[in-house]
Amino acid sequence: MRIGIIGAGALGLYYGAMLQRSGQDVHFLLRRDYQAIQKRGLQVYSCHGDFHLAQISGHQTPQEIGTVDLVIVGLKTISNHHLIDLVRPLIGTETAILTLQNGLGNEELLAAAFGRERVLGGVAFLCSNRGKSGTVHHLGEGKIRLGEFSGGLSQRSHKLAELFRAASIACDAVSDLRRARWEKLVWNIPFNGLSALLGKDVTDILNHPPSKVLVEDLMLEVIAGANAQGLEEPIDGPEFSQQLISFTENMDHYRPSMMIDREEALPLELEAIYSIPLQQAMAVGINMPQIKMLYALLDFGENDSA
Amino acid sequence: MRIGIIGAGALGLYYGAMLQRSGQDVHFLLRRDYQAIQKRGLQVYSCHGDFHLAQISGHQTPQEIGTVDLVIVGLKTISNHHLIDLVRPLIGTETAILTLQNGLGNEELLAAAFGRERVLGGVAFLCSNRGKSGTVHHLGEGKIRLGEFSGGLSQRSHKLAELFRAASIACDAVSDLRRARWEKLVWNIPFNGLSALLGKDVTDILNHPPSKVLVEDLMLEVIAGANAQGLEEPIDGPEFSQQLISFTENMDHYRPSMMIDREEALPLELEAIYSIPLQQAMAVGINMPQIKMLYALLDFGENDSA
Repeated sequence: MRIGIIGAGALGLYYGAMLQRSGQDVHFLLRRDYQAIQKRGLQVYSCHGDFHLAQISGHQTPQEIGTVDLVIVGLKTISNHHLIDLVRPLIGTETAILTLQNGLGNEELLAAAFGRERVLGGVAFLCSNRGKSGTVHHLGEGKIRLGEFSGGLSQRSHKLAELFRAASIACDAVSDLRRARWEKLVWNIPFNGLSALLGKDVTDILNHPPSKVLVEDLMLEVIAGANAQGLEEPIDGPEFSQQLISFTENMDHYRPSMMIDREEALPLELEAIYSIPLQQAMAVGINMPQIKMLYALLDFGENDSA
Repeated sequence: MRIGIIGAGALGLYYGAMLQRSGQDVHFLLRRDYQAIQKRGLQVYSCHGDFHLAQISGHQTPQEIGTVDLVIVGLKTISNHHLIDLVRPLIGTETAILTLQNGLGNEELLAAAFGRERVLGGVAFLCSNRGKSGTVHHLGEGKIRLGEFSGGLSQRSHKLAELFRAASIACDAVSDLRRARWEKLVWNIPFNGLSALLGKDVTDILNHPPSKVLVEDLMLEVIAGANAQGLEEPIDGPEFSQQLISFTENMDHYRPSMMIDREEALPLELEAIYSIPLQQAMAVGINMPQIKMLYALLDFGENDSA
């Protein structure tokens, strides 16, 4: 399958490399890694075993890539104003688009430009970051849950899930993509935001009892917002939030990406992770006051770095 | 009238000096200013005109002061674990106690130790701070609203209000002290906390639109908590919050005391301004989620400085 990777950060590079290694024809849109990868190929340092790909089809413009069967989008949502222009040159008559970006609103953007029937979304549980140019570090996890933007379990979702599994990436097709997206927000909204705001990792946050209560409160607000969206099956608030907290208690001083972005004075993905979820909740009459407050506090810091 | 000042910070020194200048017999419990004031007296720099008091009755222990007619408490609430021991030596059979401390819970402490009939409280609208030892700076305002802890407009409250007015301090006796205390919290809870958390003054906060909305939301939460306390007359939420915001928009980059305390890594008055109001609201079934969140975020910083 001919695959184009738009947004080849840590996530795009890692999944792209795994797919190429499994025999797929993968094309990367590269910026900062272009020169290094042209010269030395791509080096993957992975907790499941390092590997090196000598030949990478790297490109500096999406026009160079041309049409593909599948576009995988890993772009940071703060660059979504470029998203459509970056994807358009890859779209042929049968092209599917899978966005693995954070938060909400990405499928909607793509659907508005290219038609909702082309669009799938996936939620990636991946710990990875970029090293020096031409390298990527896979620290843990990697599972993807993907589904059709229009809902339902399609043949195509099963086929894509199989594509990832054949590349040694755990992957499930889900019929309710929206539920999967909101479930991930239940973790992202408290931990990304609080870690960025306080400059504290997830372990420090959970070790401070009032902040642990706050994490739970924020999770329950997300779940209330989620359950008002007409999901196929509601999320069990107390059970799911306790599960996520226990899961996080096992992470050893993990630093969420938003905490790192704030430390490096990079813009935060506030639109996708806070603003659009708040709007979608508000649209069905759900007020999420603590999330609204967290968003305002994080946004204040953005003005600083601007 | 023989008056003892317990907690002679900027507020205690300023009001004590004004009362002494008006002819009252004022005794100060001093710590850091003791030596300087013994040597050079007390210098008041005031926007209403500077003045100097050559003779100050300064003491290093409350036992030295002995019984008085009126105790005025200006102690920071973070030192309330010393409050009773500091006040006890000043109490005679007829002694009244007026606490001008921040937040809630101070009258209750004094009433439990000395009897509620002795206790009055006051809300001070004063911009002042300490300069070098033996000096105090009065930057603006100064009005006091005082009342009986047990409620009602007593002869005593009128007399005390007259005492302050005779010392050129604007002062009203109010029948509903609790309402006055909560009204002050409507300002303190958003502006003290947000300025300390974000390291931004009140003007910066109001210039950031999402934070201005947050200020309004926090004010409305305080007012909801207040109005559930059985006040003599409820606070009009939208009107009163807009009034306070307009008032604050006229302050030119004012830095609330809590912002300065956080910058200097001093402990914050979180118990009196956040914890007890949250408890009193919760006790009458009112949840204040954004205030609870602000308290948790501020408390996290306290652990840092500890």
